[in-house]
Amino acid sequence: MTIVNRYPGVRIGLDIGGTKIAGIARADDGAILADVRQPTGIGGDAVIAGILDATRALRDQLPGSDIRSIGIGIPGLVDASAGRVLHAVNLGVESLDIAAQVQRALDLQCFVENDVKAAALGAASLRDDNTPIAYLNLGTGVAAGIVIDGRIWRGSRGIAGEIGHLSVDPQGRVCGCGQRGCIETMCGGGALARAWAREVDLPVKDILDAADAGDPTATVLRDDLFRGVAAAVRALVLSVDVESVVIGGGLTALAERLEPGIRTALRADAATSPFLRSLHLDERIEMLPADSPVAAIGAALLGSAPADTTALDKEIVPHG
Amino acid sequence: MTIVNRYPGVRIGLDIGGTKIAGIARADDGAILADVRQPTGIGGDAVIAGILDATRALRDQLPGSDIRSIGIGIPGLVDASAGRVLHAVNLGVESLDIAAQVQRALDLQCFVENDVKAAALGAASLRDDNTPIAYLNLGTGVAAGIVIDGRIWRGSRGIAGEIGHLSVDPQGRVCGCGQRGCIETMCGGGALARAWAREVDLPVKDILDAADAGDPTATVLRDDLFRGVAAAVRALVLSVDVESVVIGGGLTALAERLEPGIRTALRADAATSPFLRSLHLDERIEMLPADSPVAAIGAALLGSAPADTTALDKEIVPHG
Repeated sequence: MTIVNRYPGVRIGLDIGGTKIAGIARADDGAILADVRQPTGIGGDAVIAGILDATRALRDQLPGSDIRSIGIGIPGLVDASAGRVLHAVNLGVESLDIAAQVQRALDLQCFVENDVKAAALGAASLRDDNTPIAYLNLGTGVAAGIVIDGRIWRGSRGIAGEIGHLSVDPQGRVCGCGQRGCIETMCGGGALARAWAREVDLPVKDILDAADAGDPTATVLRDDLFRGVAAAVRALVLSVDVESVVIGGGLTALAERLEPGIRTALRADAATSPFLRSLHLDERIEMLPADSPVAAIGAALLGSAPADTTALDKEIVPHG
Repeated sequence: MTIVNRYPGVRIGLDIGGTKIAGIARADDGAILADVRQPTGIGGDAVIAGILDATRALRDQLPGSDIRSIGIGIPGLVDASAGRVLHAVNLGVESLDIAAQVQRALDLQCFVENDVKAAALGAASLRDDNTPIAYLNLGTGVAAGIVIDGRIWRGSRGIAGEIGHLSVDPQGRVCGCGQRGCIETMCGGGALARAWAREVDLPVKDILDAADAGDPTATVLRDDLFRGVAAAVRALVLSVDVESVVIGGGLTALAERLEPGIRTALRADAATSPFLRSLHLDERIEMLPADSPVAAIGAALLGSAPADTTALDKEIVPHG
């Protein structure tokens, strides 16, 4: 009997979120061969156990596969060269040597990356060109990942894309970072929930519903949300000049209700400014469907990606 | 008698400004072998004549030199691949095929680049590391050039660094671009002159003098100027994450009076925000002395620079 290697060149990618782990197994040709979804545990041991469980679940779906690597996208400060995450607050992790532990347990090469940066890599891989893009993550916080020439652009100190903390209104709401009017105060899920101040499960959905019903506070917050995303898109294009801004993250559960408002906000700016009009920003955004597995896809790609464009593989501030 | 080639590998760089042409001859080792300064003529023919005159003046200073190329930094929309400039308004030029005309007249390879981008390349070349930098030009308008790995980063459509038109205050002054509160309305020489609305030769100097004398309007404008530059620095670091922002342009004639105020504005932000504090922005700016020839140096480097990081060599909007 001959054992057939049915799945050559498979790479596993896991997106470790605050509530769930989403994993995929990706063939070198881009095909998603298997996926898994499971709850996330809290604390370092639970996170490692979840990674091992999810990997085994993917392996079990692909008997005889040749798994080359496992990549982990995780929120927090990632030292990619060391395969370590720091300050993954939502996961109850202060410091965790993920790569070392996973490699020991599974005998697989393991790569670790900040989840937003991993998602940016994944989003770029789904496009049919090699233009520079940004992935704008609208979640509890707001941050972008930038991909240039198929590689994550970290910048000089690992904070490239940290536009959530760009202040665009000196009279705006106070941000958790200490500034006023940060983009994140306008379109971050956490900031919107604080500003709405109601005990509801889905505050952003509640804001949109209340705005539709004519609530004036909700209408202000909804318009801020749209204008905040528009400001983020403008910032990414006017600075880095990415060709496209791919929008993802938890808020894309509301994609169908957000996308028209974001496009309207971008068009309203263009109507006042010939300069902005020339940039065609409303045509340069792309909204991912809810639960798009770009972070897991990007994590899978970590093992096959060309070297980073910057020597520095550490980040010194957290992504949201 | 043997003819000695006394100056091998010389490249000429010219910075064509609205009032003067500043030119240098640069050796491959970075030494500035000669320089020239002459008034700029208005209109395409006068611009070409000025380029030829300046080049001959440099050549005459370096008899027997082996001049490899001539590079031109010029304000306006530059199509670098065609060696052409469009909409160089201050020079009275609607469209000018600079490279073709110069090559025909001088039999020298000629490269053309937007002056801010050329200055960014020149500023990067004066540093002793290869970290990503931005050159922030404070002139009539405000724009930045970005250099990554020693190459000009244009972005997808040639507008990377166009942060002068990033709005950071929805209640701010109306910008020439149609938006409100653009960074350029706060720290652009043209916008400051309009806001000051006095018939003086040096409106920014006049604003600083009047603010020092306690004039309330001038004090507001001066503080806006400092805060606008600080906003530009923040935008460049939070998006591209350049290691340093090198500040140049016409306003650096006032460098000694501007630099303390800009640093104070950056420190005031840091005092309110631990996040900004962690970025050490006040340590990441560098102010060029007045009349630093970075644009001419960068222009000289155009012929020897590695290929651009982006395929696109055109820009679709003007740098200020």
